[in-house]
Amino acid sequence: MKIFTSIPALKIWLKDNKSNNASIGYVPTMGFLHEGHEALLNKAIEENDLVVLSIFVNPLQFGENEDFDRYPKNIEKDIEVAKKYGVDAIFHPSVHEMYPSEMSATFKVHHMDVLCGAKRPGHFDGVATVVMKLFGIVTPDRAYFGLKDAQQVAVIERLVKDYHLNIDIVRVPTVRENDGLAKSSRNVNLTKSERAEAPYIYKTLLEVKNWILDERCYDTDKIEVKLKTLLSKRLSGNLDYAEVRGFPSLKKMKTLSSDVMIAVAIKYSKARLIDNVIFHLEEKEGKLCIDK
Amino acid sequence: MKIFTSIPALKIWLKDNKSNNASIGYVPTMGFLHEGHEALLNKAIEENDLVVLSIFVNPLQFGENEDFDRYPKNIEKDIEVAKKYGVDAIFHPSVHEMYPSEMSATFKVHHMDVLCGAKRPGHFDGVATVVMKLFGIVTPDRAYFGLKDAQQVAVIERLVKDYHLNIDIVRVPTVRENDGLAKSSRNVNLTKSERAEAPYIYKTLLEVKNWILDERCYDTDKIEVKLKTLLSKRLSGNLDYAEVRGFPSLKKMKTLSSDVMIAVAIKYSKARLIDNVIFHLEEKEGKLCIDK
Repeated sequence: MKIFTSIPALKIWLKDNKSNNASIGYVPTMGFLHEGHEALLNKAIEENDLVVLSIFVNPLQFGENEDFDRYPKNIEKDIEVAKKYGVDAIFHPSVHEMYPSEMSATFKVHHMDVLCGAKRPGHFDGVATVVMKLFGIVTPDRAYFGLKDAQQVAVIERLVKDYHLNIDIVRVPTVRENDGLAKSSRNVNLTKSERAEAPYIYKTLLEVKNWILDERCYDTDKIEVKLKTLLSKRLSGNLDYAEVRGFPSLKKMKTLSSDVMIAVAIKYSKARLIDNVIFHLEEKEGKLCIDK
Repeated sequence: MKIFTSIPALKIWLKDNKSNNASIGYVPTMGFLHEGHEALLNKAIEENDLVVLSIFVNPLQFGENEDFDRYPKNIEKDIEVAKKYGVDAIFHPSVHEMYPSEMSATFKVHHMDVLCGAKRPGHFDGVATVVMKLFGIVTPDRAYFGLKDAQQVAVIERLVKDYHLNIDIVRVPTVRENDGLAKSSRNVNLTKSERAEAPYIYKTLLEVKNWILDERCYDTDKIEVKLKTLLSKRLSGNLDYAEVRGFPSLKKMKTLSSDVMIAVAIKYSKARLIDNVIFHLEEKEGKLCIDK
């Protein structure tokens, strides 16, 4: 397995391999790999001749009062994980390698000032900018993103479409702890009691999904009241948002229809957790069908 | 010669040709082709297996009170010119084909609020956005840009570098009428008397360049006073700017050094003209050398 910190060195290696028509799968991460990332690597390995994993904590996507400085790191362990899964190259650049000087142009993401976009101003501008840079460097055939960051998936899918990149964006389902908590690098920043209650995030999402099914309640206002009531009863963290929206449209609906996401963000003392459930809703022969 | 109005059709044609390892030269234009564009086509034909010419008047790069609606068009003549030069494919999309819905993300260009960037707010954001889209569609090996739009060249060179695109940006010198006026699609929007005096733009640029050489005056303040005095004496149009800057740095200098651009923009009743001279300045063995 190759480890590159230099963009030109990685590009030479890629060029050599591309000349043999090798397909490139790409897993962009901020490191501190967990089983969620491993699911991305697994799928990438399955579907491509070569897999590139990048590990880069991108300062551009962190707000001033966010956790850039305390974002967890463990490069040695990440290298072991990558080796285990058969990754062909790790790209692990410094901030200076990625941003030797201020960018001449960055992305302004539009119509994304909802959910995390509303709560983290500039976050998706930074994500779009670094992902387009990374796509330019790696030029993958396929890139793998986890659905825990559902809004990020929506942003990147639109970016790839609008800028006509020949890259398939592959959505990978959220991986969870045994108790249901979505795997996240930030979980290590939870206190013991926060960690103990955090599984209620997903439990509540599932409960509300089932309540929609049982009650046939498609009124999103009512659903959100139910969701918020349950979450605030069960969780000590601050509710950043708890909303029902279309996915990947992210549009607000008065009445639930077709592709639905229930999304939640909770602020704890040193970690902000997000989670969601996404499902397809369909009336069929008078019966309600939910899948995914 | 193929003519494409559809992005997917062009992409299929490109894919077929790329699979034969054909190198692609690309000349992006807004149409109404003149000898300046022909110089771009000529160079592209010389250096590549296949040449794609795009003709698209991009609404995103025009300000509200600018000349988008009256930008000159003559697609039949453009097709004849393209055929004459041996262009392989014209890409001539509608606005709807390029922007079927509002872009999910556009570029914000930084540190370019000088020269045309200061006078045309948002112009280079629109240029960067459409050029990155077009590069995504055409995926050329080389792309050709005229030095009349020197700031545009600087913007695009930085964009390609910052987003790691494997595209060579080829600078092509300005082509001029016999009387020295820089070829421009907008020249047809000059009145007779404006057209008669317009050659003084370039004459003055040359005169100031020679004056710098003769007087060994490197003080940019003094040079700009000289330039503005001459231009306002000779031209009835409004001076939008007349400045001495580094190129491609576009930085203001107190004292001239190395790569210099003298750039001018004049506003006439229905056309805004820009022009520049770019040269390399060097003290060698006590003697001043200017080339380019």
